[in-house]
Amino acid sequence: MQNQDEIILIKIGKKIQEIRLAKNLTQKDIAFALDVEISQITRIERGKINTSILNILKIIDALDVSKEEFFAELEI
Amino acid sequence: MQNQDEIILIKIGKKIQEIRLAKNLTQKDIAFALDVEISQITRIERGKINTSILNILKIIDALDVSKEEFFAELEI
Repeated sequence: MQNQDEIILIKIGKKIQEIRLAKNLTQKDIAFALDVEISQITRIERGKINTSILNILKIIDALDVSKEEFFAELEI
Repeated sequence: MQNQDEIILIKIGKKIQEIRLAKNLTQKDIAFALDVEISQITRIERGKINTSILNILKIIDALDVSKEEFFAELEI
């Protein structure tokens, strides 16, 4: 059984992926914006990394959504 | 001159402290909720640590404010 933290990270990752795809952005686009490897974006989207608050805020900026909007849609 | 990341972390830390004090909560209360040392909360409030997204979400929960509210008030 997944613990609460894993469930939250998976929800965050899914929300990032959902918005990214809706905006026709690639993981490469997001990785470039954060100056990180694509594999890190892949792991974040799978909820495998408890990444930093700065990374999350930069991802939200790269997705061009407001922070309030992102967290409002996130049912956690 | 502070870089952009430092400025954002300081703003997040100040916002956490502002809400915490407005709700008459102590750093000890927040540290207990996260099961971390008080010194970690002190460093987060001073913008000295780029803490994890899970820690930020747990702090917001401990402050008993909505995530949207927290990020809406945060001018970053």
